[in-house]
Amino acid sequence: MKVVIVGAGAIGLLIGSYLSEQKHEITYITRTHEQAVTLCTKGITRIQPDGETVHTKVFASTEFNQAPTDALWIIAVKYHHLSSIEPHLKSLPESTALLFTQNGLAHLQWVNQFNNHPVYIATIEHGAMKEDSSIVVHKGIGVTKIAPYIKKTNHLDFTLFESPLFHIELAEDAYGIVLRKAILNACINPITAVLQITNGELLTNSHAYFLMKTIFYEIESVFAEISQLLTFEEVKALCIKTAKNNSSMLQDRLNHRTTEIEPIVGALLQMAATRDRDLPVLRTLYHLVLAIDEIGQSHD
Amino acid sequence: MKVVIVGAGAIGLLIGSYLSEQKHEITYITRTHEQAVTLCTKGITRIQPDGETVHTKVFASTEFNQAPTDALWIIAVKYHHLSSIEPHLKSLPESTALLFTQNGLAHLQWVNQFNNHPVYIATIEHGAMKEDSSIVVHKGIGVTKIAPYIKKTNHLDFTLFESPLFHIELAEDAYGIVLRKAILNACINPITAVLQITNGELLTNSHAYFLMKTIFYEIESVFAEISQLLTFEEVKALCIKTAKNNSSMLQDRLNHRTTEIEPIVGALLQMAATRDRDLPVLRTLYHLVLAIDEIGQSHD
Repeated sequence: MKVVIVGAGAIGLLIGSYLSEQKHEITYITRTHEQAVTLCTKGITRIQPDGETVHTKVFASTEFNQAPTDALWIIAVKYHHLSSIEPHLKSLPESTALLFTQNGLAHLQWVNQFNNHPVYIATIEHGAMKEDSSIVVHKGIGVTKIAPYIKKTNHLDFTLFESPLFHIELAEDAYGIVLRKAILNACINPITAVLQITNGELLTNSHAYFLMKTIFYEIESVFAEISQLLTFEEVKALCIKTAKNNSSMLQDRLNHRTTEIEPIVGALLQMAATRDRDLPVLRTLYHLVLAIDEIGQSHD
Repeated sequence: MKVVIVGAGAIGLLIGSYLSEQKHEITYITRTHEQAVTLCTKGITRIQPDGETVHTKVFASTEFNQAPTDALWIIAVKYHHLSSIEPHLKSLPESTALLFTQNGLAHLQWVNQFNNHPVYIATIEHGAMKEDSSIVVHKGIGVTKIAPYIKKTNHLDFTLFESPLFHIELAEDAYGIVLRKAILNACINPITAVLQITNGELLTNSHAYFLMKTIFYEIESVFAEISQLLTFEEVKALCIKTAKNNSSMLQDRLNHRTTEIEPIVGALLQMAATRDRDLPVLRTLYHLVLAIDEIGQSHD
């Protein structure tokens, strides 16, 4: 399959590495010319959890018109970069299939403008860290869930993406998988970012654990539908599986990048508000992470 | 007046420095022999907000029986050290007057056991930092409020403690001044300790400010009686006056000491619970500070 990947951060590199290993033909669209040149010349190096490395070749460019339109386009940029690529996506033919990997719930409404395309939503529960512009460390094996966003457009065979360390799970309900991932992120990311602890320390630090548990049940009390999607045992299981990892939000903090608190947690708080409910513990963490973002900006 | 000061931390040193300057006869009881020797030989050095230094001589010992009992005893140890000095205080004659300076509400009940003594409560709204065992930096000029705890025992003349940079305000209601100070601390200390920001940044960081304001009105909604004692404008005024200071709780964090979160915030949460109310934003901060304390202990 021809695949275009927009964005070459940790998730973009991880997906592209596995797909090019499966002989899919990958074209990256990167933000910087430097990264495009590096990817074209060096390819991608993936470091597996056991330390083994896998090299694959890819093509990369900063130019959207260098990428094929008869391809699946995977949009793997962060939520707050979606607006900058919007005009480029709008100029694609309606036949181009789009797959979005953003964390949180905030992008689902934004995606509606592409209703005339075949549109898919993916959630990625892997631990991944970008080591430099062409090296990605696969730190925790998880699962990639893919669901059609507009149900009639279910014609791509995503089982072709499957490989031993990169499981694909096909899902029916895009909202459901995104809500599940948003709640996992909301339970884990803000606390780890504020306290600067690993995911595993959420289980060993008694007060961090208490807060994580409180946030889970606070969310469950508002979103009753999640009992079908996610249990607190699964939140703990993810902490165990990624025990030594820094969450993406802590990585953002440590690298002085803006966190994804708005699309992940802000969107949940807004959805709760539409049900006339508040999530006071999660909201407190939300403002603490925003305060940390603000401190970061004032030091830039 | 003969004054014994139990504890030579920032507050104990600040008080002793001003009182010995006013010719009161000061005896310190310190925890370590080293500090007692240093204080006996070097005296106290106080560094004023304008940089000027003031030296005074004091006597110090680790032995309670080295201190006069016909004196006012000022108990200036932290809340969690009260239990270790309890047997010594219990062996004092009932005529010995006691003045407690602890932060928070937790000690008020504990103090009841000394009902047969003349007992006073003080709250100290100065910015003070202990630079070493005999040097204290007076970073923010505030006020010291003193109230009789058992009302009939109002016979000491605390106006003798007054000096230009060390104002004394006599109060009627010990519970009121302690509640006021506890709320000031609850609004300022946990946020500054978690975010590692100065008191002034509570006003300039929009999300830190939002949280501080939320905590104030959350407390006010449960403790209606505070409208007589403290306004949000006064909380902001204290942040301005101590803008460049680290709160005592942040100082504790940075020096890897256990914070006073339990006696200050834990006690407020318990008092709210006796009114069948919760303070969810403050409670979230409370568990975050306890999580930080726990991280500190696991690294010791």
